[in-house]
Amino acid sequence: MHKPFQPPPRLLMGPGPSNVAPSVLQAMSAPLLGHLDPVFVKMMDEIKAMLREVFLTQNEMTFPVSGTGSAGMEFCFVNLLEPGDEAVIGVNGVFGNRMVDVAERCGAKVTKVEAPWGRIIEPGQMAAALKDRRPKLVAIVHAETSTGALTPVEEISRLAHEAGALFVLDTVTSLGGCPVRVDEWKIDAVYSGTQKCLSCPPGLAPVSLSPRALETATRRKTKVQSWYLDVNLLAAYWGQERVYHHTAPISMNYALHEALRLVLEEGLESRWKRHERMHGLLRKGIEALGLSIASQQGHQLWQLNSIAVPDGVDEAAVRKKFLSDYNIEIGAGLGPLKGKIWRVGLMGDTATEPNVAKFLDVFAHILKH
Amino acid sequence: MHKPFQPPPRLLMGPGPSNVAPSVLQAMSAPLLGHLDPVFVKMMDEIKAMLREVFLTQNEMTFPVSGTGSAGMEFCFVNLLEPGDEAVIGVNGVFGNRMVDVAERCGAKVTKVEAPWGRIIEPGQMAAALKDRRPKLVAIVHAETSTGALTPVEEISRLAHEAGALFVLDTVTSLGGCPVRVDEWKIDAVYSGTQKCLSCPPGLAPVSLSPRALETATRRKTKVQSWYLDVNLLAAYWGQERVYHHTAPISMNYALHEALRLVLEEGLESRWKRHERMHGLLRKGIEALGLSIASQQGHQLWQLNSIAVPDGVDEAAVRKKFLSDYNIEIGAGLGPLKGKIWRVGLMGDTATEPNVAKFLDVFAHILKH
Repeated sequence: MHKPFQPPPRLLMGPGPSNVAPSVLQAMSAPLLGHLDPVFVKMMDEIKAMLREVFLTQNEMTFPVSGTGSAGMEFCFVNLLEPGDEAVIGVNGVFGNRMVDVAERCGAKVTKVEAPWGRIIEPGQMAAALKDRRPKLVAIVHAETSTGALTPVEEISRLAHEAGALFVLDTVTSLGGCPVRVDEWKIDAVYSGTQKCLSCPPGLAPVSLSPRALETATRRKTKVQSWYLDVNLLAAYWGQERVYHHTAPISMNYALHEALRLVLEEGLESRWKRHERMHGLLRKGIEALGLSIASQQGHQLWQLNSIAVPDGVDEAAVRKKFLSDYNIEIGAGLGPLKGKIWRVGLMGDTATEPNVAKFLDVFAHILKH
Repeated sequence: MHKPFQPPPRLLMGPGPSNVAPSVLQAMSAPLLGHLDPVFVKMMDEIKAMLREVFLTQNEMTFPVSGTGSAGMEFCFVNLLEPGDEAVIGVNGVFGNRMVDVAERCGAKVTKVEAPWGRIIEPGQMAAALKDRRPKLVAIVHAETSTGALTPVEEISRLAHEAGALFVLDTVTSLGGCPVRVDEWKIDAVYSGTQKCLSCPPGLAPVSLSPRALETATRRKTKVQSWYLDVNLLAAYWGQERVYHHTAPISMNYALHEALRLVLEEGLESRWKRHERMHGLLRKGIEALGLSIASQQGHQLWQLNSIAVPDGVDEAAVRKKFLSDYNIEIGAGLGPLKGKIWRVGLMGDTATEPNVAKFLDVFAHILKH
């Protein structure tokens, strides 16, 4: 006989998922509805409206893709790219590389604009890459979860549009934790995840397409290679017509509804400020321990802090101790940063003073022993 | 300010989702874990083991895709098909058509083997289609949710293998409600959904690949067109190596763990018999009302009953009354069956004597008024 699963309580201070509010967890245990039930459809509309508020956009085509953040990434690329199209993609960490891989699987010719891991993509680099190119799209990662660097996007968006391209932005880790202004920054396609600064369990990928991006998708010469992610089919399901496409993950949408409600109840500006403040506290604390943040000065993410591992310290042993002795999850470095950084997330509900204090106490204790 | 969402309690007797056990809903409100947490990884292993029991297979590559049933369908086709490959697909309802669409988006040349909606795909038809063909794969829908017909698969599987093809089966509605024997029937790739006879909320798609199917996917000449669904990447995430791919939907996996546990606690045979018995009660009841089941005699699904709409009765009005006056959801006909049938699901936790009795009472009452 199999036993019921009972997870231990963890303080989630890694790269995501973050901790979520009790009411978000409770929302998932509400009775199930059918996915075409008028009551569920009305709730879908509320989710779309709240997502527009959170993305700061008027885009009609704003909704949660029924998959995790990477499905949101794939949604943007498969709908906008056709075989032979050109794409210019910024790569300064895991998720830039992933965008390249996804775009190439769409048959696109990709030009990479690279920066060392931990640094941002500079507008000057992008300008140079776009000098003699007219790509279909330009894509960058706003907040690189693998390194803790936040690339400013307004100038790059302007350059992309001057080159006639659509501008695609990964906001998986930024949305809800620091400013993301889809309309003001003229972002044509944006995707995020639920399990970072929105503090909702993983399982959905909020996305938004500008009218120009949507038109690009509807005027394609070839069919979108993914049936599941084809916006032309999803538009009829999430739009006015309610044409059956797939069965939306009902309980996950309950959770997202509640999580978005809490984000808007706190207010975007207040929420951003809270993340900034907690980052400040953490930075002060680790500097007092003689440590520093590894990502580029002036562009360090509030919600994901890469702490440089000091010489002679066993990175993995520290992480293991955090988890096994204190029920605290922190993240490891990836790729070239493996063994060189710890990634400490202060996302959404995790970003509180008591949590930062607890982390610093435990960290000091572990480093001393 | 946005208000919390509070869904009404519904008796879900449509084509899915079905009602779920309270412990499955409760499981989703357990504290979140990180997706690489050793405790979560152990639970993933238990899910894989339980899925093997439910699919009656030894296939190592058995796990839940992080999307709904249609993502499971797409998973099978994108991994097995390369541009120019040939596929033979049975079409006797919505989901056969969907498989054709998905396979064509993979660049496959598809031969359809068609039967009228409500009827099964006959082995003789398949034999004729395979006479001069050596397709890469043959695919059919086991239980057509859009019509209520159950196609026997053993003979078709044999024919597919004789033609050198892989055999792919859609068990979205059959798994957990009637026999599905993956190894005995020599199915190479199978997918299902959680929200039908497994009585778990929608959001995951259990899949299983035979060693031969897996080898086909790993030996491809071209990259799998979907990064999100590429089994070569997923194998490292769900396998021994635990290489980070995407962030698994944690809470949905909690729900699936509990739902599978309940399925195995009841026992597959007992569960199938319960579905058969409830179907018998429903059939008797509707026949007493002078009505009948519309799908092919001898091949009618236990878990999804297509009731023919009698002349002069407003199909949509009856459905609406069920929902608004009695909180009971039943399904509509699709495509050529629109307006001609009601689809009454008796899946998983919905399939109980009191529920059948309640449905029949209400149905009799509505038809009389």
